[in-house]
Amino acid sequence: MQEVEDKTLLPNPDGSDPVTPAFRDEEGELNSEFLAAAADAIEASDADLLQRLVDDFHESEMGDLLEALEPEHRHRLIELLGSSFDFAALTEVDEAVREEILEELETATVAEGVRELDSDDAITILESLPEDEKAEVLDQLPAIERVALQRSLDYPEDSAGRRMQTEFIAVPPFWTVGQTIDFMRETEDLPETFYEIFVIDPAAHLLGSVPLDKLLRSKRPVTIQEIMNDEPDRFEATQHQEEVARLFERYNLVSAAVVDEGGRLVGTILVDDIVDVLEEEADADIKQLGGVKSDEELSDTVLYIQRSRFPWLFANMCTAFLAAGVIRLFEGSLERMVALAILMPIVASMGGNAGTQTMTVAVRALATRELGRSNAWRIIRREAAVGLLNGLVFAVILGSVAGLWFQSPQIGFVIGSALIIVLLFAALGGIFVPLTLNRMGVDPAVSSGPFVTSITDIVGFFAFLGIATAWFNL
Amino acid sequence: MQEVEDKTLLPNPDGSDPVTPAFRDEEGELNSEFLAAAADAIEASDADLLQRLVDDFHESEMGDLLEALEPEHRHRLIELLGSSFDFAALTEVDEAVREEILEELETATVAEGVRELDSDDAITILESLPEDEKAEVLDQLPAIERVALQRSLDYPEDSAGRRMQTEFIAVPPFWTVGQTIDFMRETEDLPETFYEIFVIDPAAHLLGSVPLDKLLRSKRPVTIQEIMNDEPDRFEATQHQEEVARLFERYNLVSAAVVDEGGRLVGTILVDDIVDVLEEEADADIKQLGGVKSDEELSDTVLYIQRSRFPWLFANMCTAFLAAGVIRLFEGSLERMVALAILMPIVASMGGNAGTQTMTVAVRALATRELGRSNAWRIIRREAAVGLLNGLVFAVILGSVAGLWFQSPQIGFVIGSALIIVLLFAALGGIFVPLTLNRMGVDPAVSSGPFVTSITDIVGFFAFLGIATAWFNL
Repeated sequence: MQEVEDKTLLPNPDGSDPVTPAFRDEEGELNSEFLAAAADAIEASDADLLQRLVDDFHESEMGDLLEALEPEHRHRLIELLGSSFDFAALTEVDEAVREEILEELETATVAEGVRELDSDDAITILESLPEDEKAEVLDQLPAIERVALQRSLDYPEDSAGRRMQTEFIAVPPFWTVGQTIDFMRETEDLPETFYEIFVIDPAAHLLGSVPLDKLLRSKRPVTIQEIMNDEPDRFEATQHQEEVARLFERYNLVSAAVVDEGGRLVGTILVDDIVDVLEEEADADIKQLGGVKSDEELSDTVLYIQRSRFPWLFANMCTAFLAAGVIRLFEGSLERMVALAILMPIVASMGGNAGTQTMTVAVRALATRELGRSNAWRIIRREAAVGLLNGLVFAVILGSVAGLWFQSPQIGFVIGSALIIVLLFAALGGIFVPLTLNRMGVDPAVSSGPFVTSITDIVGFFAFLGIATAWFNL
Repeated sequence: MQEVEDKTLLPNPDGSDPVTPAFRDEEGELNSEFLAAAADAIEASDADLLQRLVDDFHESEMGDLLEALEPEHRHRLIELLGSSFDFAALTEVDEAVREEILEELETATVAEGVRELDSDDAITILESLPEDEKAEVLDQLPAIERVALQRSLDYPEDSAGRRMQTEFIAVPPFWTVGQTIDFMRETEDLPETFYEIFVIDPAAHLLGSVPLDKLLRSKRPVTIQEIMNDEPDRFEATQHQEEVARLFERYNLVSAAVVDEGGRLVGTILVDDIVDVLEEEADADIKQLGGVKSDEELSDTVLYIQRSRFPWLFANMCTAFLAAGVIRLFEGSLERMVALAILMPIVASMGGNAGTQTMTVAVRALATRELGRSNAWRIIRREAAVGLLNGLVFAVILGSVAGLWFQSPQIGFVIGSALIIVLLFAALGGIFVPLTLNRMGVDPAVSSGPFVTSITDIVGFFAFLGIATAWFNL
């Protein structure tokens, strides 16, 4: 992690190796020359050249390279690099890419690669393997690692137990600072990175933790017990990763202990995994609000995406037919006054957009736990007021424009009144739909959209055509 | 940071102090009993009771409490708690709340509070003060702190220089591990948390860094030079925080050095600030895609929100009029065949939703730097294929339903053909609009929506009404 090349973070003015094209251009985009050179080296099975190209690559750069390569080149690259390929790079690629690469590799190669990884990365790889191959890879690992990984895999998906690292440093409370430091100096096989050491009793129950800076600043004869924090940050292995991530965020944590149901230390979660969780969750919210499944990735196939986007469009079609049904009720009015047909989509679209604004705010605030029972009523009142206010403002604007366009102040008055009603209902729908879905235990990001647009469409057409029919005696 | 109470992370089965109601209920929602007790204590100016209630509060809990209180109680709470109030809590509340509280507090109180803070938190507070009060508060700080804070404030908003902490440990390369550890043991005023120490020359140029675990594991006589990483992660103080955050994420960083244009160490950025930046950016994307300004907060007033949501609705109104203009071109057809008026909103709404799906994926992939020149064409081809495929599928479904509904296979055929065209254009608009805006340096999250829906509306009405007019000779 500390070996990141300087030039990646700051452009290196004196240029890099002239023989090797740079991996990224100045704007941070992947360099097509580099990609071509890598593809050529793979085609020619030139392991030496390839090795020179990817020399000093960080796992995330290797991951980006893998994603940018043609699928048939990806596993070839790994085979050519052999033991110098760091399997951690596979944790940096889309799941679809990872699965496809792992499918092509020999089980022995995968087992060899997994053995070198920290347990959290190893779990990510194992999760992407089919059951039988997962068992085979586990079989080829040393017993201690196998047991630790198996235990992680036994925890539910997306739990703290799956995300945790099972490598950590734990010492008894009666050790001195000196003993602890000497122990760390002498132990070869320490975790790659850690920010605190844990304190446990002989049965592995978590007693406390000592941040590294505190350890460094204490004198050698002091006992661990004296300097430990006896209420360390801890999570149950079965807790959901999103809950863990929100608490990391709330309390600015960098690492925390993971304990089993008996309070025994089983692992540690570090902030870099949490950053990924938070990004995943934000990603899921953004996609779901836009009607896209949360697991859709850029590397998915056309057929997969078409099928995954179908249900949302289908739901939308059903609500659109419902709205069309409302319009059909006013068939006679439309026949007598075609201006209504021309203006009615404006009313519906204003309602849809205002509803989306409120819904977006509500869904996001629910996701970040900012919106809860204690402030729900305040937010509902506020949204209703905003809706009413914008309704009045747009009633005037839209009413004037429409009245002028059709040379009929009466049409302006009708569309204006309809708009006030629609924007009020849009605001109420935009907040009540997510709140209700959330109360029912349904993810509001996934399903709020179609409900809100049905409400705004139906109310919009009803209000506009209804008021017009009454007003003009159609 | 380490003083988080156990019960906040894991429910404490044996219950908490029976006198004090819990701050959060079992579902993590703020407890209304607690809020009432705190409000009562504030009303009664009972500093002792208040102190007992918020005893051991983490700054984020204090922040949540401040937000939940009535506005007029917020600054009263701070005044009652006096010097025991940790101003870091003010960095955890919405900006609007922070500004309002700071306005009510005496300048001397604010200066006192700011003095106790790490520099990154102090900057957050100072940024929320009006210029004159900011200068007054700075004047009341000790010279060293004032200079450091002033330097941070001189960097552009949202830059690494604003986010950095100016407290860090820096040692010369010729020091030994032993000297360094002794120095840290003896220095009282060390940063609250740190994960690496920096190595500098006499002119403060950054030479390297040593992670704490490496320091701990090295023997006392070893020199810093021998163990330091001489290509430490570093950012320029003027770099944008989002760029810094993406690189933290990409390389799983926990801390990094910040240097000025001359390569001199001026601060350090820690991952907990980066977590906030990533959340802010995701938040901004979500809101902007939903037509809400990125800085809208739950605590904003009705008038502020109404005005901030107005432009998006106004843009939508303009595009809706454009679409209505297209419909008006077919006024004659609509008069002769009212079924068209009933069905046309379905076509437009299918197009709008399919366009939003593609746009959401494109905007998010641009934000996370997953979509770039190297894969843009592949994604465009893929989206076009998905659009065409869903167009065909829905042409059949929608065509059949509409044909049955209006007892006219011809209407089914017309709406089906229109739908294929619309969904193809929706896909192309959904990807080309964000890509083009991004190329032009405009944030695609903010402005893609109105463009994409104009395209789908106009194409939708044109295709449907045009095909119908030609087919039925209207």
